[in-house]
Amino acid sequence: MLSRFFAPKVKVSAHCDLPCGVYDPAQARIEIESVVGCQEKYQANTDADFRTRALIIKEQRAEVAKHHVSVLWSDYFKAPHFEKYPQLHQLVNDTLKAISAAKASNDPATGKKALELIAEIDKIFWETKQG
Amino acid sequence: MLSRFFAPKVKVSAHCDLPCGVYDPAQARIEIESVVGCQEKYQANTDADFRTRALIIKEQRAEVAKHHVSVLWSDYFKAPHFEKYPQLHQLVNDTLKAISAAKASNDPATGKKALELIAEIDKIFWETKQG
Amino acid sequence: MLSRFFAPKVKVSAHCDLPCGVYDPAQARIEIESVVGCQEKYQANTDADFRTRALIIKEQRAEVAKHHVSVLWSDYFKAPHFEKYPQLHQLVNDTLKAISAAKASNDPATGKKALELIAEIDKIFWETKQG
Amino acid sequence: MLSRFFAPKVKVSAHCDLPCGVYDPAQARIEIESVVGCQEKYQANTDADFRTRALIIKEQRAEVAKHHVSVLWSDYFKAPHFEKYPQLHQLVNDTLKAISAAKASNDPATGKKALELIAEIDKIFWETKQG
Amino acid sequence: MLSRFFAPKVKVSAHCDLPCGVYDPAQARIEIESVVGCQEKYQANTDADFRTRALIIKEQRAEVAKHHVSVLWSDYFKAPHFEKYPQLHQLVNDTLKAISAAKASNDPATGKKALELIAEIDKIFWETKQG
Amino acid sequence: MLSRFFAPKVKVSAHCDLPCGVYDPAQARIEIESVVGCQEKYQANTDADFRTRALIIKEQRAEVAKHHVSVLWSDYFKAPHFEKYPQLHQLVNDTLKAISAAKASNDPATGKKALELIAEIDKIFWETKQG
Repeated sequence: MLSRFFAPKVKVSAHCDLPCGVYDPAQARIEIESVVGCQEKYQANTDADFRTRALIIKEQRAEVAKHHVSVLWSDYFKAPHFEKYPQLHQLVNDTLKAISAAKASNDPATGKKALELIAEIDKIFWETKQG
Repeated sequence: MLSRFFAPKVKVSAHCDLPCGVYDPAQARIEIESVVGCQEKYQANTDADFRTRALIIKEQRAEVAKHHVSVLWSDYFKAPHFEKYPQLHQLVNDTLKAISAAKASNDPATGKKALELIAEIDKIFWETKQG
Repeated sequence: MLSRFFAPKVKVSAHCDLPCGVYDPAQARIEIESVVGCQEKYQANTDADFRTRALIIKEQRAEVAKHHVSVLWSDYFKAPHFEKYPQLHQLVNDTLKAISAAKASNDPATGKKALELIAEIDKIFWETKQG
Repeated sequence: MLSRFFAPKVKVSAHCDLPCGVYDPAQARIEIESVVGCQEKYQANTDADFRTRALIIKEQRAEVAKHHVSVLWSDYFKAPHFEKYPQLHQLVNDTLKAISAAKASNDPATGKKALELIAEIDKIFWETKQG
Repeated sequence: MLSRFFAPKVKVSAHCDLPCGVYDPAQARIEIESVVGCQEKYQANTDADFRTRALIIKEQRAEVAKHHVSVLWSDYFKAPHFEKYPQLHQLVNDTLKAISAAKASNDPATGKKALELIAEIDKIFWETKQG
Repeated sequence: MLSRFFAPKVKVSAHCDLPCGVYDPAQARIEIESVVGCQEKYQANTDADFRTRALIIKEQRAEVAKHHVSVLWSDYFKAPHFEKYPQLHQLVNDTLKAISAAKASNDPATGKKALELIAEIDKIFWETKQG
């Protein structure tokens, strides 16, 4: 796992411009996993205050997730990527809307839908790194 | 890579308590990589304003990195981990101080030192996940 | 001017879903104006520390501007808008990249380019409100 | 509307000092409209979790609204304004307290009271721009 | 010192309304001390990057200081206080402007001026606690 | 009290390195007092929305408290302190976990436990200032 751990640092150098050139969809993915975690814990606990906390924290994690996804789209992906992946604009917009939907729901299926979409972005992202 | 992509979600369930139970040292590692990225770009460009921006952004990424490391220590690691890894307190403190040192320096070696330390935390983290 | 001042509140009600349904491209536009303001003041003052502060503040305002633009795209604009305005995805992406370019430059022309693009989004936004 | 859209940028230049000299009460007004939006949606939906989200988001928007109002008072308005408008200190304080009151209530009348007060500040603001 | 340490908790109960009723001008004072610290370190070190970091951090601490001062004025102080201390509005406004002035200067005298003003607010604050 | 008010500024100079060298456990203590305040108000008011707001605000204040405690541990305390106070690592970790526990509870006893622990850190902190 450690070789994976350091891999991004090596690969990013060719795509950088300041700020720093380090992008990784894992940032968004981890936050969406937190959203799913909050939804699952909400379902498993009927205490009203516990559920309120689950909603508070889910709202925050979803917001951060949306930020990370937006940054990938505005800062990392560029014209050649949009040409090669014409579905990318809509895929990113769908992902952001899926995260918003997970904010408004306690059904873990909504969070998992967002996870599926970020996995699609992740697949494209790593393809562009190897291109 | 996709199997790795979803792996954390599966494994964390046994260690969760609300907020959400999702922890991953990759969050800190990616931010420290940004710190190193800023240092390397600083070295490669002598324009004064570019360098100022590198310092501004490095300060922010380092601050977020410290936050992620602190959360691992305060929220994820618990008494049994500190017993099994008696060096853990000092390792985390050293990591935080290494990130602070990278804030105060433009030598990429300082950021890379912090990367080495977060890799040690990462190794322990994943061992505890498998324990 | 006061009738304009309260106009958005009246109009948004048909497009709302929680959070609150209140969107206004003016939020992004005002922040981009701040970016231009920082660039113009940078040009008018050669003191090194003054210029550093201009860079610090420009970085912050540009970041907030990008956030407001992203929110319009992910939260306000929906499928029917993207159908009616097929250029919208690219226009928003161009706007975000123009704000990033203004971060990396002290030429007020870069900030003004971002202002022109947000004005295009603003035009579409208010058309969709009247539709 | 476009001429209004760009008007502030032209007018502010005489009152600037770095940060950037761009101020607009619309920033506070839009956030308070969000507060009213949350209150109205709270009233229209009896689902407990929906209402919790309305409270979470209202708290955030109100906090940002207070920030924008405070900045107008501390950064934009200066001694000559306070001389010409001796009620300004109290008006701003009343506005901030009205926003706090809207935090603690789900009655849209409380948010609308804050909107009325920011409209009074807005009126004074634009008078000072023309003076 | 410990008796001082816990004193605020005891005294605030009579003035509380949610959020929590805990106010202490020490929060603003400590941040302004940080501003002065940054100014003094700036003066003592001619390294350009060190000075840039001093400016970055001073900007942040001053911003937080202004927030704490604004909260005292909008949330803690109420009509009876403004009657008893008619200078309070102007004193708070002067304090906020003094902090802004310290943002724009590296002369520790500017930060110390802000410290003197927050000490005046602090004096009034503790008088109202005893009243 | 005023002499106490300015005391930290005088004493810190010997321990400084940029950022600014100003540390004070009072920052964490005041935030934890807010947590206790939220818990006590929660207990005294059975209105569901009031209690939701108490949870929202407690979550925020606890988060800031944890940040201030982490900063003391990572930035202020150094090797000689950890040698002289071998319990310090565990004490800080216990304090952070106590604040997290207060997040998850509405029993003021949990917040007061965190206050006791920050008081222990405070005692050590001021001893190191005099050493």
